[in-house]
Amino acid sequence: MSQYFLERFSKLTPYVPGEQPNDQPYIKLNTNESPFPPCPEIIRAVEAAADRLQLYPDPEGRELIRALSKRLNLPERRILLTNGSDEALNFAFMAYCDALHPVVFPDITYGFYPVFAELHHIPFSQIPLTSDFRVDPEDYCAAAGTVVLANPNAPTGRALSVEQIERIVQSKPERMVIIDEAYVDFGAKSVVGLVDKYRNLLVVQTFSKSRSLAGARLGFAVGQEALIADLNAIKYATNPYNVNRMTLAAGVAAVENDNWFRNHCTIICENREFLTGKLMMLGFSVIPSEANFVLARHDLLPGEALYLALKRRGILVRHFDAERIRDYIRISVGSRNQLEKLLQAIQVILEES
Amino acid sequence: MSQYFLERFSKLTPYVPGEQPNDQPYIKLNTNESPFPPCPEIIRAVEAAADRLQLYPDPEGRELIRALSKRLNLPERRILLTNGSDEALNFAFMAYCDALHPVVFPDITYGFYPVFAELHHIPFSQIPLTSDFRVDPEDYCAAAGTVVLANPNAPTGRALSVEQIERIVQSKPERMVIIDEAYVDFGAKSVVGLVDKYRNLLVVQTFSKSRSLAGARLGFAVGQEALIADLNAIKYATNPYNVNRMTLAAGVAAVENDNWFRNHCTIICENREFLTGKLMMLGFSVIPSEANFVLARHDLLPGEALYLALKRRGILVRHFDAERIRDYIRISVGSRNQLEKLLQAIQVILEES
Repeated sequence: MSQYFLERFSKLTPYVPGEQPNDQPYIKLNTNESPFPPCPEIIRAVEAAADRLQLYPDPEGRELIRALSKRLNLPERRILLTNGSDEALNFAFMAYCDALHPVVFPDITYGFYPVFAELHHIPFSQIPLTSDFRVDPEDYCAAAGTVVLANPNAPTGRALSVEQIERIVQSKPERMVIIDEAYVDFGAKSVVGLVDKYRNLLVVQTFSKSRSLAGARLGFAVGQEALIADLNAIKYATNPYNVNRMTLAAGVAAVENDNWFRNHCTIICENREFLTGKLMMLGFSVIPSEANFVLARHDLLPGEALYLALKRRGILVRHFDAERIRDYIRISVGSRNQLEKLLQAIQVILEES
Repeated sequence: MSQYFLERFSKLTPYVPGEQPNDQPYIKLNTNESPFPPCPEIIRAVEAAADRLQLYPDPEGRELIRALSKRLNLPERRILLTNGSDEALNFAFMAYCDALHPVVFPDITYGFYPVFAELHHIPFSQIPLTSDFRVDPEDYCAAAGTVVLANPNAPTGRALSVEQIERIVQSKPERMVIIDEAYVDFGAKSVVGLVDKYRNLLVVQTFSKSRSLAGARLGFAVGQEALIADLNAIKYATNPYNVNRMTLAAGVAAVENDNWFRNHCTIICENREFLTGKLMMLGFSVIPSEANFVLARHDLLPGEALYLALKRRGILVRHFDAERIRDYIRISVGSRNQLEKLLQAIQVILEES
């Protein structure tokens, strides 16, 4: 850090993304990417967009907004496009949280929420998950301040029902509720349909997981017109051309090829059940997941040791050095072939330990 | 705006980007894009990257950093990659400006600087350009606070020399100087070489103009290691995967095909001289430009009227409704063919007025 860096950032602890090594061909089960490459229509759309890269993208992203509007059955003015869903979350933290509107989220959740809070000097409190790693909606009905919940939650994979989230949103209409649905396409139910009824609800989604576009950086937020206007004000005061031409084109193709993406979600859900069953047969405790990852723990192998042993065998999973989940590893649900290799490796590690 | 939007943003006036119409094929001379499409190597690199979009990009952008490091003859740790240079500027405003470190820039300059200042509640002062629209370096040697200068300046096109900028940087080593070199490749001299000597200098560049990649969103900042560490702390607390896979690949190909881009810069400079000469023959006053645009004024035609008359004829230029430059239009230097059509249209408009 330099002598010029503002004092207010001196204690900032940035988010640590999962490893993205490029030194060897790892089996990557550490950042919840899709094991499926984008469909041919996406690749063709990107190629067509590449010819016109000398021109700025449409800052409003009208073509993609139109496609999403049709797909989600929502007016266009209820959708904001962002450079990954992290950007949507960052804008929402900026727009709706400060010392008078502190933010509240679970003790175990997406590690970026406390980082956004620290970045913008927003006081935050963390409500412990139940002993079986569930979010108790009553905790959030009772809590003061802006609520941020990942649903399904990460890295636990456990989800709330639409009714449970509706109760939180209803409980205090004077405060914002931000629901991060990064993993919603793998079995949980989206609350996008509630936006019509509640002006204090913002829903954030991403193309990174179920739609195989982590590398393209595309997220979006859905809320009533006034909320989207707030976030657009921040976008146009930050980076109006936040989503590039190629990603806009890829997004349109992804939305238009809905079956392709639904099929993949079905396969991932099947693979998750396969993985969960096999892990339990190997003696793991596995948190029931509605996401494209599972959080699992083995009594004989601490999380970090297992993570390191797998890494040595060319398989990346994620270990969080954090209270309550230190004993676990989080495994992204990859292809059947990847999972079989993982399970073989775990079996060998267990035999050797 | 919603009832939940923080009071602190209630007076925020977002940046207004140049029009990006998609209703008819305009001759676009309004946002300083390159008239040249990206070279075939860039398109091939994008196509190759599209196949792996299911994977997150390398958050460190190592391959592109390496290529830039070689090209600029700078250590890798002195380079930060961003989602367009606006993001680099936003991070720098966040990192180095606050109530105790107010920001100072010219009265006529890139319209985003006051927006960043308002967004982050940074007090700012604007120093008037000289009567012939030059930056007087002595003004900035004398001024307190963080200095932000576009060089060449926009929308005037006038540039400072390396020596003039060095004097500003030297004058007060306790404060940061941010030089925005978005347009530096069209004849002005870069101060990237000064970074070695001064720890209070940050230089920002973009791939949007000279490198035909406005649609890809790629910028970078250059400064001593400690400054880049500051900005990386903000990046990793905001959006670690800020630059997508396709853009990273396009960037590498652009850097490796340096001749291609230098040839285009030469053509743009020639076209700029052609345009300037012709405009003067039509009775315009033209500010001498070292950028890929010119600011020009005609005594018989107010800026807005000329902008509108050209738009009706399918030609977009930019008019700024701002003091001192209200009578002008800014014309991006396009291809010879585009400029000839523009000049014909202006001639007709002048005859009809």
